[in-house]
Amino acid sequence: MKPIIFEPIGVIRTSFKQVKGMPIQPSGAEAKEGRVIVDPAFEAGLEDIDGFSHLILIYQFHLSKGYSLSVQPFLDNQHRGIFSTRAPRRPNPVGISIVSFLRREKNELVVENIDVVDGTPLIDIKPYVPEFDAPEVTTTGWLEHRAEKSGAMRSDERFK
Amino acid sequence: MKPIIFEPIGVIRTSFKQVKGMPIQPSGAEAKEGRVIVDPAFEAGLEDIDGFSHLILIYQFHLSKGYSLSVQPFLDNQHRGIFSTRAPRRPNPVGISIVSFLRREKNELVVENIDVVDGTPLIDIKPYVPEFDAPEVTTTGWLEHRAEKSGAMRSDERFK
Repeated sequence: MKPIIFEPIGVIRTSFKQVKGMPIQPSGAEAKEGRVIVDPAFEAGLEDIDGFSHLILIYQFHLSKGYSLSVQPFLDNQHRGIFSTRAPRRPNPVGISIVSFLRREKNELVVENIDVVDGTPLIDIKPYVPEFDAPEVTTTGWLEHRAEKSGAMRSDERFK
Repeated sequence: MKPIIFEPIGVIRTSFKQVKGMPIQPSGAEAKEGRVIVDPAFEAGLEDIDGFSHLILIYQFHLSKGYSLSVQPFLDNQHRGIFSTRAPRRPNPVGISIVSFLRREKNELVVENIDVVDGTPLIDIKPYVPEFDAPEVTTTGWLEHRAEKSGAMRSDERFK
């Protein structure tokens, strides 16, 4: 299959200058404001985005070098298959975060609960729509009873 | 910023051989089974995925050529900024779908509620975790009262 080539549409600015000490998920990043700076060439694409309380950001884990098929996630003391985790050392280092959307200022979006390192390349922005994105979930595998602790957890350097 | 180069990790097989007539979102694809065929080289990365009832699939809208910053979505009769829609003609044609996960057979995942065309290149698989992915949503902008109708809607060829 052919390689997929994306050009960043912008950059995510946050107060997290390094991976160590970052929240591991948006739920641990409450009250942390960030800015999604979209290339002015794409500003017209942001029309009508006001009014959505949450957005999906898709971005590159640009600090992740190489990948591991088995990783020890922050929330566990065992190794797990990479696709059953949200760890960054993936074959394609793509990340997604659901963030609270506060307001747009021209080509910039002010968001909250952002859990990425400053300077993260932005691939796409989508509106979060519960009818599409919030299924009735019954099971969460190895993360059961672990995910709820994620809010207080902070990253270390294991995926550098 | 540097281009981002991903290699597909597999392919999504569905019964939708063309875009026309497809459900426009997973909620409209109920009971439609699909197969996520992961390159056998990555099979070890699927360990521990059993037990999650839902997965996030990230893929390429490979049939989408070029992009528009303003589109008329299936759910509306007005033009909207592309980033306030889920339409495929995006600057980076990346899609995400939350699907029900039925079972794994070696390097293949059998899923339900899949809304992509057969042969879609797969970029990543992540576990769906409500603590990370299901915020309390208050507003959904122009999609308010429209998204709930999406289940019955079918695609036409407008984004070809």
